[in-house]
Amino acid sequence: MIIVTRPGITEIQLDAIREAVERAGFQTHLSRGEHRTILGCIGDERMLSEVPLATLPGVESVIPILKPYRQVARDFRAEATIVTVGEGVGASIGGNALAVIAGPCSVEGRDMLFESAHVVKAAGATLLRGGAYKPRSSPYAFRGLGEEALMLLTEVREETGLPIVTEVMDTRQVELVAAHADMLQIGARNMQNFALLSAVGEVRRPVLLKRGLSATVEELLLAAEYILARGYDHVILCERGIRTFETATRNTLDVSAVPVLKRETHLPVIVDPSHAGGKAWLVAPLSFAAVAAGADGLIIEVHPKPSEAKSDAEQSLTPTDFNDVMARLRPFAAAAGRTMAAATPLMAGAGATR
Amino acid sequence: MIIVTRPGITEIQLDAIREAVERAGFQTHLSRGEHRTILGCIGDERMLSEVPLATLPGVESVIPILKPYRQVARDFRAEATIVTVGEGVGASIGGNALAVIAGPCSVEGRDMLFESAHVVKAAGATLLRGGAYKPRSSPYAFRGLGEEALMLLTEVREETGLPIVTEVMDTRQVELVAAHADMLQIGARNMQNFALLSAVGEVRRPVLLKRGLSATVEELLLAAEYILARGYDHVILCERGIRTFETATRNTLDVSAVPVLKRETHLPVIVDPSHAGGKAWLVAPLSFAAVAAGADGLIIEVHPKPSEAKSDAEQSLTPTDFNDVMARLRPFAAAAGRTMAAATPLMAGAGATR
Amino acid sequence: MIIVTRPGITEIQLDAIREAVERAGFQTHLSRGEHRTILGCIGDERMLSEVPLATLPGVESVIPILKPYRQVARDFRAEATIVTVGEGVGASIGGNALAVIAGPCSVEGRDMLFESAHVVKAAGATLLRGGAYKPRSSPYAFRGLGEEALMLLTEVREETGLPIVTEVMDTRQVELVAAHADMLQIGARNMQNFALLSAVGEVRRPVLLKRGLSATVEELLLAAEYILARGYDHVILCERGIRTFETATRNTLDVSAVPVLKRETHLPVIVDPSHAGGKAWLVAPLSFAAVAAGADGLIIEVHPKPSEAKSDAEQSLTPTDFNDVMARLRPFAAAAGRTMAAATPLMAGAGATR
Amino acid sequence: MIIVTRPGITEIQLDAIREAVERAGFQTHLSRGEHRTILGCIGDERMLSEVPLATLPGVESVIPILKPYRQVARDFRAEATIVTVGEGVGASIGGNALAVIAGPCSVEGRDMLFESAHVVKAAGATLLRGGAYKPRSSPYAFRGLGEEALMLLTEVREETGLPIVTEVMDTRQVELVAAHADMLQIGARNMQNFALLSAVGEVRRPVLLKRGLSATVEELLLAAEYILARGYDHVILCERGIRTFETATRNTLDVSAVPVLKRETHLPVIVDPSHAGGKAWLVAPLSFAAVAAGADGLIIEVHPKPSEAKSDAEQSLTPTDFNDVMARLRPFAAAAGRTMAAATPLMAGAGATR
Repeated sequence: MIIVTRPGITEIQLDAIREAVERAGFQTHLSRGEHRTILGCIGDERMLSEVPLATLPGVESVIPILKPYRQVARDFRAEATIVTVGEGVGASIGGNALAVIAGPCSVEGRDMLFESAHVVKAAGATLLRGGAYKPRSSPYAFRGLGEEALMLLTEVREETGLPIVTEVMDTRQVELVAAHADMLQIGARNMQNFALLSAVGEVRRPVLLKRGLSATVEELLLAAEYILARGYDHVILCERGIRTFETATRNTLDVSAVPVLKRETHLPVIVDPSHAGGKAWLVAPLSFAAVAAGADGLIIEVHPKPSEAKSDAEQSLTPTDFNDVMARLRPFAAAAGRTMAAATPLMAGAGATR
Repeated sequence: MIIVTRPGITEIQLDAIREAVERAGFQTHLSRGEHRTILGCIGDERMLSEVPLATLPGVESVIPILKPYRQVARDFRAEATIVTVGEGVGASIGGNALAVIAGPCSVEGRDMLFESAHVVKAAGATLLRGGAYKPRSSPYAFRGLGEEALMLLTEVREETGLPIVTEVMDTRQVELVAAHADMLQIGARNMQNFALLSAVGEVRRPVLLKRGLSATVEELLLAAEYILARGYDHVILCERGIRTFETATRNTLDVSAVPVLKRETHLPVIVDPSHAGGKAWLVAPLSFAAVAAGADGLIIEVHPKPSEAKSDAEQSLTPTDFNDVMARLRPFAAAAGRTMAAATPLMAGAGATR
Repeated sequence: MIIVTRPGITEIQLDAIREAVERAGFQTHLSRGEHRTILGCIGDERMLSEVPLATLPGVESVIPILKPYRQVARDFRAEATIVTVGEGVGASIGGNALAVIAGPCSVEGRDMLFESAHVVKAAGATLLRGGAYKPRSSPYAFRGLGEEALMLLTEVREETGLPIVTEVMDTRQVELVAAHADMLQIGARNMQNFALLSAVGEVRRPVLLKRGLSATVEELLLAAEYILARGYDHVILCERGIRTFETATRNTLDVSAVPVLKRETHLPVIVDPSHAGGKAWLVAPLSFAAVAAGADGLIIEVHPKPSEAKSDAEQSLTPTDFNDVMARLRPFAAAAGRTMAAATPLMAGAGATR
Repeated sequence: MIIVTRPGITEIQLDAIREAVERAGFQTHLSRGEHRTILGCIGDERMLSEVPLATLPGVESVIPILKPYRQVARDFRAEATIVTVGEGVGASIGGNALAVIAGPCSVEGRDMLFESAHVVKAAGATLLRGGAYKPRSSPYAFRGLGEEALMLLTEVREETGLPIVTEVMDTRQVELVAAHADMLQIGARNMQNFALLSAVGEVRRPVLLKRGLSATVEELLLAAEYILARGYDHVILCERGIRTFETATRNTLDVSAVPVLKRETHLPVIVDPSHAGGKAWLVAPLSFAAVAAGADGLIIEVHPKPSEAKSDAEQSLTPTDFNDVMARLRPFAAAAGRTMAAATPLMAGAGATR
């Protein structure tokens, strides 16, 4: 930490600052420059967050040197964390294999869920997504089937073997959702719902943590740190587009966040091209870009019939389009040194017959 | 709602769109233009959010005409809602009198709380703020005294008569906090915590709803609609700065949001100059600007000794500075046609003696 | 300037960095911390912009301590610069009197210009604005009357005595525009047109420099520094709204920029509420807020008949509305310790008779 | 164009609006809804920019249906425009071959320029970049060698055969720069320098138009339209990162802009990963992402010795790193269906000997 003092600071003020810093357990180094006197403070400044040095008379600014997070940092653990989701075979995220999570935005009923699951599995997806509780801007919109959806997700996992990812929005739901799902998703709007982060950190289920609409990379890492601080480190970070002035897309995919995160943290990083672009026709190019930039996986919305979807219709792929995206993705994955699960021809009507 | 179709749409596609719209209960009007054919849809489109028309073949875009909120709108209720907070005299927000909520960022102990309360009351504040539960970016930062702080707030209300405003962060805390506080604050990071909005809407306590860091005015109104949709309308909106590219201030105060909100909604609108600017020296000019722009009130952080504050030290006013801001605010309030509570000289040591 | 080194830097790397810094004329101070070794560099770092220290092996980051601008800074000149515009009486900006620049977006013809000038003068405006060359997003939009408009502006100044402000968009126009106008405006889209800034700095006419749509306060000050670096310091800064995610207003007025600029620089600071809000009904509250926040003046679009304006129709005030805004502004100006020019009753048909 | 009227509009107001619209050459269609009456206007609204309908009494909003640009649109010309740069063999941009423009940020001297040119050509670059005139935020920074640099660029083209791209910043330089360079670059800060756009449209040299820091995709297309409106269509669009709240990267690469632009326009689209990320280590992942998203080319900064560069040192690749990026790029280009120029082993010391 560096303390920059104002021009004309008095020796008495300087002594007071130095004392405050040393009382907090730091060693200090003074540099008297032509324009500014600077105090270098040696110690672990992350412990100092509650010493309000910036308000001391004569202080112009306090410049942190260390990043404010610890356990999520590459400095803390050099090797990549690989998260295994689900029992038995399960799916792993963060290793060499590209993880593809796919499925409907929300679970709207049994048939559409089973059909989606069979379709995405056949195309090579390794996990199934499906919302039981939906955060919606309007109180008048469809907000999910709740517990009924959780039951259906459990059933479909038994039939297909795909591990289940679903969102949890409320601390009161954490236990229930954790009893059914293989991975808990924290949505963008809850990235800084600190009570929820802490609660989720207690149940020992892998967590898919989505970046907030206007969260910096540093804030995303601090949100993950909340979970790691509870002693649990199976956290996957998800870039899903940030809010900017551009209105041509629903959000702006911050594709640079992928390499930045991979450098800063040992946690896996995936991308959600569906929410980032907000349009079905953007899913293919954004998926390719994400994998080319180094993402460990993708999460893609697929709906048997988007024109009947109760949410996110415009950005959902049809089964045919999803198949096509997966097929075209393979050479990009190979170029990035990634493997993908094989596609398995879907027996006629497998999903539809249920 | 207007449906714009693609160039070259077929009559069959057009018929399918028209049917889908009519099935959803709308009347349709077709305009065939030189470049585009357009379908006007007559009815209450806010009911239509789940009909994914944009995905139908031949549709280029769907343009909503009505705002997505209802009960918060001026159209719904023309006269201003005046919220009364606290029992007995209490304080009212939204009428002619300017509401000034002041106090420390967090309740750090009895002495600092009581001193703050006496000081802000003497200067003319009408409500007391103080955090019991603090949302913090880092899991290693001070997160509030919790229930102990709630007890202290109840005590200080008894002594000073100031109604209490404090933040609630978790659905599990709502009942407890509502049992102690006169107004529940929903912080910026929880503005789209829909479970919390719904829970707060049930307990029949006035709600201070802060705008999210990257929430549009429309999203703020929809968040308030979540509470009104539970049958409770004592909601106060708070502009507290949005996230932009500018780093000279902590956030960017969107002062235009004040007149925009006053035009769109009947709910009271206040401004938080402390979080918007993030610097004590910015509180005065931003407070004056907020009141000049038409705000119904202010919420200001005051700490007996900012250099010892456990959070938000840089933006907290000293008692002396708060007095000064309030004195200089009076002519601006008068220019805006607002009254302010009189300042009452504080007896020597009133707060400090406890 | 502080150089933060990477963990595990070698002594050889450290020596190389130190040498590079000292070769550039700095003294160095080394602080070896637990987590990082830091090199304090003493000297005037603004001279060092071309020594790319950040690329030296072992460097993690280079943190500047001094602001990159000099002559515009309060540190450089403590007292406020007062700019006098026009000959004879003229108008001064930056002193105690509030400067109000008003007039049409573009000069569309003689009658509308003369009517505008008489109307705004009668209401208390002290300078006249009017565009001869208009920057327009679309090449198909009206782009101003050019030289003809400059002639008309000269004429109307003779009749009313109001100094003239008009935009210059091209280095090739600078001399011509300077021959007619009393103050040259550099528009938001040209704030970083460095060739234009330099050219304008040569002609010794006061400059009204508008903040770019996504320019930081620091970049605005550096743009002004371009002009001061040519030895001319009659520059007025103008906050006119920045681009953010919010779409309820045309731009987001960054009202905090006013006190931030007033603290950082000795140059006058004015606000353009017309472009910031983009709606006529927002001009009043934003004008009041700007003056309350400490602005030295306002620039407001007024059109005799906005529904016939060739540009910016939605944000132009009618003469009646402008009168009303000016009348309601007076108590806010008084609260801010500002004087305003008296309103003078307009003789019936004064402007219209020409 | 759709005109939405206010609730409670009178028949007289409605007639006045309808008349104004019809006078402007449109047919009108009236739809009376439960909540709003809507007027559909049939005709080419792009001609209507100067009829300020939004200010007419009773109008709530005017919603455009057509995009404001014409000649740049895919609707206007369905097949992709392929731009050929340079005489003789030259280089083409917009076809199947991936264009790679590489070279130093600024031309700092003969040796570094020739070395750069040989190096990038050997690695497979097809055009050479090099700044003669540099836009710099600070007036005290290095601003390029000017005409001397243009001479050197001409020389190096003769030796290597690589067509030359260099920036033009001032209308007064257009002819001079066009006499030396094969393609004129308009920088991000000048994207809405409309005088420059028009001037460049006159000289019949291919134009590389960079997106402004806070320009929307629509504004970028309108800027290109300025050039096409002069009757010249060899314009290449360049996404180079936009300004957002995120500070982990210099700018935020809007990779979605690539597929959005490819859908909206027939003009070629390239990406500048150097300015977008602002760090040399980000150039590789961002280049791969850009090509995966469908970019027609890349523009990359390469410097023989970044630690001695006079500008953009942190984001410049060394020759070795550039070689590595190009080699790793090849499989991604292949996955995207693109060809790349072969790498040709550089004879020892080819560049350095000069």
